[in-house]
Amino acid sequence: MKVDILIVNGFVVTMEGKGVGMIEDGAVAIKGNIIEAVGRTEELSRDYKAERIIDAKNKLVMPGLIDAHIHTGISIIRGVAQDMTNWMQKGIWPFMKHMTREDSVKGSMVNIMEGIRAGTTTFCDYDGYMTDIVHNYIKIGARARVAEMVNELPPEISDLEVGELYTFNPSIGQEKLARNLDLMDNYHGLEDGRITCILGPQGPDMMSLELLHEMKSLAEIYDSKLHMHVAQGDREIDQMVKRYGKRSVAFLEENGFLNERLIAVHLTEATDEETEIVAKSGANMIYCAGSIGIIDGLVPPMLTFLESGGTACLGSDQAPGNNCNNMMNEMKFAAILNKVKRANPAVFHATLALRSATIEAARVMGIDHEVGSLRAGKKADIILLNLQDPTFFPVLTSPIRNIIPNLVYSARGHEVETSIIDGKIVMEDRKITTIDENKAIEEAQQAAEGLAERAKDDILHAESDILTMMREGML
Amino acid sequence: MKVDILIVNGFVVTMEGKGVGMIEDGAVAIKGNIIEAVGRTEELSRDYKAERIIDAKNKLVMPGLIDAHIHTGISIIRGVAQDMTNWMQKGIWPFMKHMTREDSVKGSMVNIMEGIRAGTTTFCDYDGYMTDIVHNYIKIGARARVAEMVNELPPEISDLEVGELYTFNPSIGQEKLARNLDLMDNYHGLEDGRITCILGPQGPDMMSLELLHEMKSLAEIYDSKLHMHVAQGDREIDQMVKRYGKRSVAFLEENGFLNERLIAVHLTEATDEETEIVAKSGANMIYCAGSIGIIDGLVPPMLTFLESGGTACLGSDQAPGNNCNNMMNEMKFAAILNKVKRANPAVFHATLALRSATIEAARVMGIDHEVGSLRAGKKADIILLNLQDPTFFPVLTSPIRNIIPNLVYSARGHEVETSIIDGKIVMEDRKITTIDENKAIEEAQQAAEGLAERAKDDILHAESDILTMMREGML
Repeated sequence: MKVDILIVNGFVVTMEGKGVGMIEDGAVAIKGNIIEAVGRTEELSRDYKAERIIDAKNKLVMPGLIDAHIHTGISIIRGVAQDMTNWMQKGIWPFMKHMTREDSVKGSMVNIMEGIRAGTTTFCDYDGYMTDIVHNYIKIGARARVAEMVNELPPEISDLEVGELYTFNPSIGQEKLARNLDLMDNYHGLEDGRITCILGPQGPDMMSLELLHEMKSLAEIYDSKLHMHVAQGDREIDQMVKRYGKRSVAFLEENGFLNERLIAVHLTEATDEETEIVAKSGANMIYCAGSIGIIDGLVPPMLTFLESGGTACLGSDQAPGNNCNNMMNEMKFAAILNKVKRANPAVFHATLALRSATIEAARVMGIDHEVGSLRAGKKADIILLNLQDPTFFPVLTSPIRNIIPNLVYSARGHEVETSIIDGKIVMEDRKITTIDENKAIEEAQQAAEGLAERAKDDILHAESDILTMMREGML
Repeated sequence: MKVDILIVNGFVVTMEGKGVGMIEDGAVAIKGNIIEAVGRTEELSRDYKAERIIDAKNKLVMPGLIDAHIHTGISIIRGVAQDMTNWMQKGIWPFMKHMTREDSVKGSMVNIMEGIRAGTTTFCDYDGYMTDIVHNYIKIGARARVAEMVNELPPEISDLEVGELYTFNPSIGQEKLARNLDLMDNYHGLEDGRITCILGPQGPDMMSLELLHEMKSLAEIYDSKLHMHVAQGDREIDQMVKRYGKRSVAFLEENGFLNERLIAVHLTEATDEETEIVAKSGANMIYCAGSIGIIDGLVPPMLTFLESGGTACLGSDQAPGNNCNNMMNEMKFAAILNKVKRANPAVFHATLALRSATIEAARVMGIDHEVGSLRAGKKADIILLNLQDPTFFPVLTSPIRNIIPNLVYSARGHEVETSIIDGKIVMEDRKITTIDENKAIEEAQQAAEGLAERAKDDILHAESDILTMMREGML
């Protein structure tokens, strides 16, 4: 049979079954945007003729990584809000107040490049002005499952004292909801299904119960999941208790939000009991290890969530938090932070980390029929990594196969040489083929400088810890 | 004045003063292996003429990173001992029993390449057969401060049950000590001082008190520090209590080891009180964040050590633990694990992380008169990083300069383009100029396969957690 691309001679990790599904002398046949076959090189070489043959000797061939939670629109302020308390209010908002749609889109493109260069092929992007940002994905050729981040917060929110109750502005909520519906109506399914859209309420503390209910009804109508921050920080819990007299999980439970439609992001402040309630409801969880570690110094309850029977996965969150968007970073941090949390090195292993960035992420996002593993009939999202990089040395297969531990604990991202998304080669020899990378960085850098200049007075006024470090000559 | 290399137009981070010593339009002049001048581009361009001018526009120019604790000789078994309990006894020893000097040296070379490619210029290597391994440093051109790892453990140690008291073999101790003295006598100061040697007792649990005393006396004679694991795990404490009826720190204090000559590595199991005793004694500490996080699920007391007035720094430890040897990884993990330990995001900042991998590491190792910062008169160990990589985006200078947070929290290592060590360009455009990298990897890979084959029976006999995972098809 004739196919478009035949990858041969690789270590193929399918992520099928309960482990990683390793085929040591593996091959993958791709026809159009679909995986035609996965198997041993001997078999596929015999059964398929291809336009293009990729020799994957000494390469790892695996499903592209899925970043289940990323805000690419604020990567333009990476590195300005580290090592500080009141991260959101003193670090992020003074910048965001001055950020234009153009700033956001330009920064987003560099962020997507960063992800692709580290093996991410599916971006579950969750941000403001997603109707603009989504065009980056269309252009660069990455798979995206996007949501407009809907809230009712007015811009003046950045002037509130820490601890003051947020004011809501319903017309702002309706405007953002309209953009989310614009996505659902006009972008969902674009590019032969490479672009899909879901609903994205920002959090129970950032909008009225009325708007939350409205989005829940819309989720039924559109058959969409709700991608939402839940118990993401003590700031949120404080707002919820002040406004409703109850914590986030109890509030969501009472109002009928805990079910299969909910993707609960972070759960940083969820108690073990609350975590179990969410897991048992059928809702899923996204854990952002690097981000919550660096912003809050905390390790959310992913293991407890899994132990309660829930499905969970990983996301890289926003660049000005984590502050990189690299799923290799997330896999290693998720494993080590959980080992440390339980003071037990065996508690979160490399295979769990890798599953959480591939097939489990696909499950959480509701796209496991299309991506997350290599299987005939699924979309062809495949990355090839150089096993001859020193970080993968040595490659052993017996009596212990060490490729997965070295992928999770040693690889850094630069080992990804080729990225095939939806059957198309989007990166080859570490060059992204679909856009001009230098131009994208130059444009975004200019936008970032303009933004920092416009935001100057607000930044100086915020008196953040990082500003103090700057003044003391520490940066 | 005429110099050999003049680096201009860079963001120069000198690591002088209490912060990072940033010069925004900075330049460095190098003559031979010495830094002739550091300053603004305008000044140095006027004052110096150079054989070779390096335009560092959009580059970060900084001191090479110092890896204060690395065992390159066991990198040949990277990835075979992850996610398990009894890491040393069930994971490492079954392999080490069969490892030859040649295996060790070949693996070491790939490990050194990995470090150089991620910005390390000084390796404080601590391993067996260092008289062989040291030739790798001579050949590749890296700076090294090496110690033979001296113990009295016979090979049969790998057959002991977990918890049994180690047997000591004094003739093995004397053989290893002889190698350490061979280093001190015949290698210290080689290559114009690029290679230096210190004494390396492996730990208070791994040798007799007599041999420890002998090495202490030799440290006086040679005016050397003692690079030693202290309180590195519950395994060590268990041995000490069984053998001497006391814990490591009390034992070392009573026997006169706690002073400026001691470099105490890990202190994983040291209580706050013990940590304070070591810090106040003038001894220094090395913290291996990734390694201890992954092997033990623990966060050693570096912050307590610093708060007690001690000097501490970072090391990457061994590849089959951490399991990468990349100081970017160490900086990020050190910061985040300590934030998590204290549940406070402000407690370990990017500048502290960077200092701990440069100037503070030089202090701990007793080489701060030569390296660790960029200052006229110091050795020319300098790395250049590409600030136009997406991981560094955006580069802002006002009102908050974000280069250091992005270096510590976002950069991965591949941003290092050029490495100058002792005035010579050892890596340029990410190609190591001094050795054949592909050949080194091929030779080491062959050696690793042979080792795994020879060690097979012992590995199968050890019944480790990772072997169980392998059998269950999880790897």
